[in-house]
Amino acid sequence: MQQQSLTSESLLQRCVQRIDQREKDIRAWSHLDIKKALTAARQADETPSDGLLHGIPIGIKDVIDTADMPTSYGSTIYAQHQPIADSYCVAALKQAGAIILGKTATAEFAHTQPPLTRNPHNPEHTPGGSSSGSAAAVADGMVPAALATQTGGSTIRPAAYCGIVGFKPTFGLINTAGVKPVAQSLDTVGLMARSVADIELLMQVLVHPDLCLPTRLAAVPRVAFFKTPYWEKIQKSSQQHLEHMARHLEICGAQVTEIVLSDSFDASYPAQRLVMNYEAARSLLYESVTSPQLMSNALNAQLSIGRNYSLADYQAALNQISAARAELANTLEQYDFILTPAAPGIAPKGINASGESIVNRNWTALGVPCITLPTGSAEGMPIGIQLVGKHHQDMRLLHWARWVMSNWSGKTNPI
Amino acid sequence: MQQQSLTSESLLQRCVQRIDQREKDIRAWSHLDIKKALTAARQADETPSDGLLHGIPIGIKDVIDTADMPTSYGSTIYAQHQPIADSYCVAALKQAGAIILGKTATAEFAHTQPPLTRNPHNPEHTPGGSSSGSAAAVADGMVPAALATQTGGSTIRPAAYCGIVGFKPTFGLINTAGVKPVAQSLDTVGLMARSVADIELLMQVLVHPDLCLPTRLAAVPRVAFFKTPYWEKIQKSSQQHLEHMARHLEICGAQVTEIVLSDSFDASYPAQRLVMNYEAARSLLYESVTSPQLMSNALNAQLSIGRNYSLADYQAALNQISAARAELANTLEQYDFILTPAAPGIAPKGINASGESIVNRNWTALGVPCITLPTGSAEGMPIGIQLVGKHHQDMRLLHWARWVMSNWSGKTNPI
Repeated sequence: MQQQSLTSESLLQRCVQRIDQREKDIRAWSHLDIKKALTAARQADETPSDGLLHGIPIGIKDVIDTADMPTSYGSTIYAQHQPIADSYCVAALKQAGAIILGKTATAEFAHTQPPLTRNPHNPEHTPGGSSSGSAAAVADGMVPAALATQTGGSTIRPAAYCGIVGFKPTFGLINTAGVKPVAQSLDTVGLMARSVADIELLMQVLVHPDLCLPTRLAAVPRVAFFKTPYWEKIQKSSQQHLEHMARHLEICGAQVTEIVLSDSFDASYPAQRLVMNYEAARSLLYESVTSPQLMSNALNAQLSIGRNYSLADYQAALNQISAARAELANTLEQYDFILTPAAPGIAPKGINASGESIVNRNWTALGVPCITLPTGSAEGMPIGIQLVGKHHQDMRLLHWARWVMSNWSGKTNPI
Repeated sequence: MQQQSLTSESLLQRCVQRIDQREKDIRAWSHLDIKKALTAARQADETPSDGLLHGIPIGIKDVIDTADMPTSYGSTIYAQHQPIADSYCVAALKQAGAIILGKTATAEFAHTQPPLTRNPHNPEHTPGGSSSGSAAAVADGMVPAALATQTGGSTIRPAAYCGIVGFKPTFGLINTAGVKPVAQSLDTVGLMARSVADIELLMQVLVHPDLCLPTRLAAVPRVAFFKTPYWEKIQKSSQQHLEHMARHLEICGAQVTEIVLSDSFDASYPAQRLVMNYEAARSLLYESVTSPQLMSNALNAQLSIGRNYSLADYQAALNQISAARAELANTLEQYDFILTPAAPGIAPKGINASGESIVNRNWTALGVPCITLPTGSAEGMPIGIQLVGKHHQDMRLLHWARWVMSNWSGKTNPI
């Protein structure tokens, strides 16, 4: 993405070659239009660069509308559905010169039932989800970057499982017009790439050209090390890696302080789940009334849970999230970012489930920016750490993510 | 809507008769399917009632997706566009037994350029907008209730101009899946009917069956009378009517206190406008890139304003809105609702503009529930008052709206 000498066509050809070799095993894509992409790449090579992503191929999670490619939301209800318009984010990518290579496989409505995608590090393991195809395609070198979404942990977890950089921006910062709604208080467009620099470029295109890395920050960060209420559920190797990273950052000059948040903060974890299921039961009402037989049992069960909450339950959950947001903002005044697990461990074996979002869902509810960085590995599978920043200070978080990566040379198990 | 003795077919026939007489002059509808509605009404009469809106015809603003009727978002870009799914709110209405009579005319993308709809009280005047057709159709007796939307003042203002009850619920309470996004921090589904009781019924269907009127409230309300920062811009007759209503409520036992809010609160008015244009420029990016020639000059100009804001402008506006929200919540602790103008006066003459949202837009930004009640008139045109309630206390506000109407017998200039 950063290499100016490369032609768009040769970059795309590398992607196509990789797809030819690997897609039959990885199954990252729900739709590919290589011919159209090649034509666009040749055109890009013949015209002067007029956008930040001139000639760069990108994959789009298949819950994000595209006017010239089918968008099935991971559901047989919408098999071959052709939206009439591009979503905001696809229109913005195209305006910046990007080439949409195809649609990446997603869990059904970005919710529960995973697609057939496999982890490029070991096809017996899940790539995570719901942005399964985006994570696997980027990790496998099939495309340099992809759009994802996150309502629970759907960007950070698969990015961590696949050993790439995944970023969930501040809630609302990237417009969600044309993204199939799951839970509109939570739905966030996520970004996946192989470097923090590429994430920065995508943010400039998708948020605002004003965005730039902050200057005049301290040379080293103040880090809040947060083990989450679910520390005991996290695999030993991931615990050890995170503790190792905390010590390593300290050695590099960071001020690292372990923090514990209140029980009231911890309530934001179950509150996120309640809000997600309550809102999803409504966002997907049409589908659940007209085509329940075309939805997975898992999804029908989740929507039924969502329908059965009382209004008071929902309002209490929203209040719990507000309270946790205030507590977090208060705590973060003393720190530059939180260092915390990105996932409960390495990607689990099997592709019928895509892992738990226990260390992600509260951050989504709180609307703060999160990034996962591929810093570790165990059993031949990647381990990511997660940095969490302050509301609307996305570029500061990316600055510190760069700082972490530039101070880290550990083995990250690249493919 | 409340009359159990009426058959659905006879109710619908009355609507059809009214439409036959008046639609050529009023132009409230962008799409009508009377034949389908009649079939559905006969079916409803033959089946036992199984929903709160069994057999009730309803109009749907044409920015809200319907799976069996075209949805053009008020734009020639989408002329005859047929969505693949019902929006959440249409699915919920159908589930409750409602009959969708047709789509009502809307300003282009619910934003600026009005449709050809005329005010039923005087066709030389605007019905207001952007929910022009919904307001005119309900006011004219073409349909007992209609869905609207509000991003600035698009529900309350046209309802007030047309002399009906208009309700904008708490932000987020009615799911917006399948509503064409304009500005997702603001977009709210609104309701229009001829009585507060009908609004309550719609709320139960669209929010949650749990919703019910609160009990154990005081017999009389504590009213904050708020003239807004734009009092000098409000027509004399509307000023006089609002002051008259304030005195009247006092005579009825209410404790009425005039309040003034801070300059920092007043910043929420321009902040709403900035957020709306900033977000709309992104929500409608695809259309403005691919079909600017099919959009009105007015819309192109607004979107261009939105594109030119800096990110810092946008973030500052969001912060101003947050601060105003906190101030309002604090102020409202001492009151049951705010009494304030619903519009800057009677509906202006001419249909090329639909009036100003100067007394609406801040409430939309703050996310609080608002209702307009048709309590006055001047020059043969209706005047509405507006009551503003507390976040997530929509049914309390409806309770007090009922109280106001039951204590008011002034002439309201019915059609």
